[in-house]
Amino acid sequence: MKKANVYVTLRESVIDPQGTAAINVLHAKGHDNVKDVRIGKYIELTIEDTGQDLDTAVREMCEKLFVNTNVEDYRYEVLEVEEA
Amino acid sequence: MKKANVYVTLRESVIDPQGTAAINVLHAKGHDNVKDVRIGKYIELTIEDTGQDLDTAVREMCEKLFVNTNVEDYRYEVLEVEEA
Repeated sequence: MKKANVYVTLRESVIDPQGTAAINVLHAKGHDNVKDVRIGKYIELTIEDTGQDLDTAVREMCEKLFVNTNVEDYRYEVLEVEEA
Repeated sequence: MKKANVYVTLRESVIDPQGTAAINVLHAKGHDNVKDVRIGKYIELTIEDTGQDLDTAVREMCEKLFVNTNVEDYRYEVLEVEEA
């Protein structure tokens, strides 16, 4: 069995309203040394290894479902996992 | 400057409706070997190093703002980063 961990983040050039709001709250709670907050998605995929090309499959899943490629970037890692 | 990367995931015992919906879409698109999908948050914090205890500060930020500790788990890593 394989696990793919996908990290989806807004492109640097894109304003992150959630992140901006979080900075204001953190500063109000005394965390003044927080300079930037970027909030994205973390996706864990558990995939049965059928010998297929997992990189191609994971990229396809990301670009067809999990990622808005107009405003988001993504990276992923594929790991071997013990059968549950 | 330091960067804290925070990974927030729903507890294993908690049903993930977004993840369940994603599995159905992926299967419909031919990715039948996907056995599980868990969708969480990935947060990048850029923090000015003022010599404070960053672990305590990051845990406090997570538990006060980013994480619902009733249903979510979290882990984080703190990295040194070049000044932008």
